[in-house]
Amino acid sequence: MSNAAQLLVSMLDELGHITDEPGRLSRTFLSPAMQRANRLVGDCMRAAGLKVRVDAVGNLIGRLASANPKAKTLLLGSHLDTVRDAGRFDGPPGVLLPIVALAELKRRGVHLPFHVEVLGFSEEEGVRFASAYLGSKGYCGKLTAKDLAMCDADGVSVSEAIQRWNGLTPGHSSKRVGVNALHLKAAHSKSNLLGYIEVHIEQGPVLEAKKLAVGVVSAIAGQSRFKLTWTGKAGHAGTTPMALRRDALAGVAEFISGVEAIARRMPGLVATVGTLTVSPGAANVIPGSVVHTLDVRHADDRRRRQGLMAIGRLATRIAGRRKLSRAWQRTQENGAVACSPSLTAWLEQSVKAVQGKSLSLVSGAGHDGVVMSALTPVAMLLVRCRDGLSHHPDEYASPKDLAVALAVVTDFLERLAKDQRG
Amino acid sequence: MSNAAQLLVSMLDELGHITDEPGRLSRTFLSPAMQRANRLVGDCMRAAGLKVRVDAVGNLIGRLASANPKAKTLLLGSHLDTVRDAGRFDGPPGVLLPIVALAELKRRGVHLPFHVEVLGFSEEEGVRFASAYLGSKGYCGKLTAKDLAMCDADGVSVSEAIQRWNGLTPGHSSKRVGVNALHLKAAHSKSNLLGYIEVHIEQGPVLEAKKLAVGVVSAIAGQSRFKLTWTGKAGHAGTTPMALRRDALAGVAEFISGVEAIARRMPGLVATVGTLTVSPGAANVIPGSVVHTLDVRHADDRRRRQGLMAIGRLATRIAGRRKLSRAWQRTQENGAVACSPSLTAWLEQSVKAVQGKSLSLVSGAGHDGVVMSALTPVAMLLVRCRDGLSHHPDEYASPKDLAVALAVVTDFLERLAKDQRG
Repeated sequence: MSNAAQLLVSMLDELGHITDEPGRLSRTFLSPAMQRANRLVGDCMRAAGLKVRVDAVGNLIGRLASANPKAKTLLLGSHLDTVRDAGRFDGPPGVLLPIVALAELKRRGVHLPFHVEVLGFSEEEGVRFASAYLGSKGYCGKLTAKDLAMCDADGVSVSEAIQRWNGLTPGHSSKRVGVNALHLKAAHSKSNLLGYIEVHIEQGPVLEAKKLAVGVVSAIAGQSRFKLTWTGKAGHAGTTPMALRRDALAGVAEFISGVEAIARRMPGLVATVGTLTVSPGAANVIPGSVVHTLDVRHADDRRRRQGLMAIGRLATRIAGRRKLSRAWQRTQENGAVACSPSLTAWLEQSVKAVQGKSLSLVSGAGHDGVVMSALTPVAMLLVRCRDGLSHHPDEYASPKDLAVALAVVTDFLERLAKDQRG
Repeated sequence: MSNAAQLLVSMLDELGHITDEPGRLSRTFLSPAMQRANRLVGDCMRAAGLKVRVDAVGNLIGRLASANPKAKTLLLGSHLDTVRDAGRFDGPPGVLLPIVALAELKRRGVHLPFHVEVLGFSEEEGVRFASAYLGSKGYCGKLTAKDLAMCDADGVSVSEAIQRWNGLTPGHSSKRVGVNALHLKAAHSKSNLLGYIEVHIEQGPVLEAKKLAVGVVSAIAGQSRFKLTWTGKAGHAGTTPMALRRDALAGVAEFISGVEAIARRMPGLVATVGTLTVSPGAANVIPGSVVHTLDVRHADDRRRRQGLMAIGRLATRIAGRRKLSRAWQRTQENGAVACSPSLTAWLEQSVKAVQGKSLSLVSGAGHDGVVMSALTPVAMLLVRCRDGLSHHPDEYASPKDLAVALAVVTDFLERLAKDQRG
């Protein structure tokens, strides 16, 4: 393994020990551990020749200016916050890997004809507040008054947390400070940017199944999330004949099987019932009602809507035949994000050069790239992770695979530089 | 409505207000409310000419001796305890109705050629201790050392509770007193008994669907209860394609639908999944494991076992195809209890005489009759209850239906008397 790859692995390891909770890895928005993480990664940025700053919402930004002041800026990054009891590979590789790549190019004496900013977003996981992407939203000037008013478990609002982070005392009269007062403007105008590149672990099993270290994202899937409530009639499990039952769980079981069949029939659609609660919930009582979630994703919004319509018809049929009532509540809705065709083509060339062949993947998980896509074209490189496992201390991407990703990003920067020069 | 039926309804109402918990009806084993209930019902028994005693486990026993000291004894009864937040009709009608019937026969000057004991069992619901039927087990001399050692939520054992109830101070050296020391012997030898008759609300919807006030039980269903654990593999709901999933909940959904189909195909079989827990239980995570209960009942033990074998094969097929592991734990197993053909035939004659036609029903619920069947032949009369609802404050049997049941029991006693005389 190259010295650059070894540096990357040891930095990931060191960062993986910076935590707010002793004994397990947890770094949340604007926490003391996030401050220490920014210090560590900021030092790495400086060592690679980058100029470092932290913006108003805690994003770590390292800038490498090109000799040409009129050049555009290429953004590369990911998030430095984690879920609770996290692994070490969800987020940090997307920040550290570009730093190491830039250090490597510096060592080789390669000068880029464009500015580069490496971004370590302060919040992506949605742990401290109910909402995700606070870091990239802040960077893009997209934080809303509603975002700022959200409170954490201690009753501290996003705007108060931001003021404290910036050394301000939240005023008595204006506990909720607006977007403008906090100067949360977009860091760049669209026209000054070349695009945003994110490297992230796959968090899924496809690359492992295909025996490939890395793959290129074609699109980030759109996502609909629902809470469904089915109501039938509770009854005595011994005295109610099968024919007289209105068993909510039996209806939901048929629904889950039907949803699975629809998703299997429609290529690229994934649908999941992840939580389910039965009432009254006793071994000898027929379930009177069931509440469950439904998560549906597809890279093509039209396909996702087709899937949802088929699922809706299925629910109507089941409810009608079984005399159950049902209620749908939409809890989340994100459109799909198509990656930039040109940036993605460059990235694929680099993957082919390094790995022999490329694989096009849909990212079923949401990423900072979703928010960034409103500001600039986006491309993403996914790295194989063991067993597809993520959000778990056993999360793992091998040094060998990380070295492949590092080589891809380095090659990509060189190709883009050559193109921009020519 | 007759005076006798009115008396029955008003007694049920008064008893329905004797509770250990203000604002809702809850009477548990050997509680203060049970003592007050015994006092009220005991007074009714005395008014009907019965001689009243309370046995060592709190069962209320009213005896009407026949002129012939060598006559056998007919038992009629049910339980006076309740679930928490109970209705007023689960148990008490089976105690009060025979008392009112005997009072009516006394008023008419009918003398029975057999002794009668009306039994108000002190425990059937299994609320205070984890086990049910403590009253009828005590009456039959079937309480075991294991029963006596069980403790309630306050750490008081059954034997301590019994000693306190009987005004004894539990000894320091023998906190757990054995069966013999408490004189918990059977109240009768088998040869002295004619049988046991229990009137109970149906706790199910069949009589309502058939538009009948009462029906006669052919058998009390046997019952198997299981806890099943299915294990697949948790994963990210967005990044794991359908084909690579080992979703435990999708497997269980298929299982629940299959169990329902088996029960619908096999007449008389009822099968219920009443509780279900999903792990890890997040909207965006594929379920890695599911734990649920399974309750299977049939009046014919052989049929129940056939059903269980079909269900077992179903589980094996699903687990194999979906690469899930599964574990079964049997938590309960009761054989079916066939009712006495002769007593049941008498009861059916009375039902036909009063109601025009009779209906034979399987009791899917357990009853004191299950325990009593080891001591003496058993017959049961079920009374329609509104919406089949039970174990709920809205539980309701109409005065009209109760009057029908009262007329049936009165007619039954007269027929049996005529038969015994002739």
